[in-house]
Amino acid sequence: MAVVEKIILGIDPGTSEMGYGIIRITGKKMTLLQLGIIHLKKYSGHELKLKKIFERVTSIIEEFHPDEVALEAPFYGKNIQSMLKLGRAQGVAMSAALARDIPITEYAPKKVKQSVTGNGNASKEQVASMLQTLLNMKEIPALLDATDAVGVAVCHHFQGGSQQSGNKSWKSFLADNPGRLKK
Amino acid sequence: MAVVEKIILGIDPGTSEMGYGIIRITGKKMTLLQLGIIHLKKYSGHELKLKKIFERVTSIIEEFHPDEVALEAPFYGKNIQSMLKLGRAQGVAMSAALARDIPITEYAPKKVKQSVTGNGNASKEQVASMLQTLLNMKEIPALLDATDAVGVAVCHHFQGGSQQSGNKSWKSFLADNPGRLKK
Repeated sequence: MAVVEKIILGIDPGTSEMGYGIIRITGKKMTLLQLGIIHLKKYSGHELKLKKIFERVTSIIEEFHPDEVALEAPFYGKNIQSMLKLGRAQGVAMSAALARDIPITEYAPKKVKQSVTGNGNASKEQVASMLQTLLNMKEIPALLDATDAVGVAVCHHFQGGSQQSGNKSWKSFLADNPGRLKK
Repeated sequence: MAVVEKIILGIDPGTSEMGYGIIRITGKKMTLLQLGIIHLKKYSGHELKLKKIFERVTSIIEEFHPDEVALEAPFYGKNIQSMLKLGRAQGVAMSAALARDIPITEYAPKKVKQSVTGNGNASKEQVASMLQTLLNMKEIPALLDATDAVGVAVCHHFQGGSQQSGNKSWKSFLADNPGRLKK
């Protein structure tokens, strides 16, 4: 019997830092290949930050050749300005995948927590602890902020990957996640 | 005396259509090379629209090799959701330029109108009419919506190009354009 292998890149995009996690699925086994954070605060200028996001996500894709990308799409912006900036950061990260025809699926933070721990209101530590178990990690990663990105990759796998959840329209995505919109 | 030649790509990004205009500057002469609209309404699904934006802007850049990109950055969104979508569309369009190290400069719609016609509240028709004169066009382009993109390219040239106005921080950009923020 052939064992399906698949690489999933999880991204947690933000304007001050961007977390990423890469997992490999071999049959029913999940392995963490890498996790990390792209620090953006040190770059002055909005355009430079966007450029760095594009370059780093591109180099991650070139190194690991993910089959699918899962995006944690948070709505933490308090105002129009921060949402436009977040949208740009997301758009740039997505471009690196779009440029290579890699399917992207979006998940709300609550969905990720729900999928990984069974509790949509789980803490960052609880998510990290569950990921440690699921991925057979010896210790909880020091880069706690990067675990959200690993979480969205695992969530994507649990949700059936791009075959079932991919290519959803923005409308259906919002319909599934009414709590994410700040009116 | 050497005559400096420069190609400027103006982009007016939106989520239902994206206008673009390419001008060539030769010494003090401006020539319109092309203008057009990328229609996005026909594509269902937010991700597909973003993909098309990336592909089309990339192909325009590969065809015309612009030295600089000028972006009209409108704030017409009425809510958080539309601003996030607009931000993504802008981010994807910007990525196509960032991927090739082409400097991007942003202008508010009012600044473009002011720079092209001398009146920040000029109508679309007045902007088009002035562009017709400046660019020696035989007739006003039928694609009136694309003239905003040509306008931002001309505005960028009038503002001194990327040497003077480029690489501005988001903060200083907003400081210069306080009216653009919807609080």
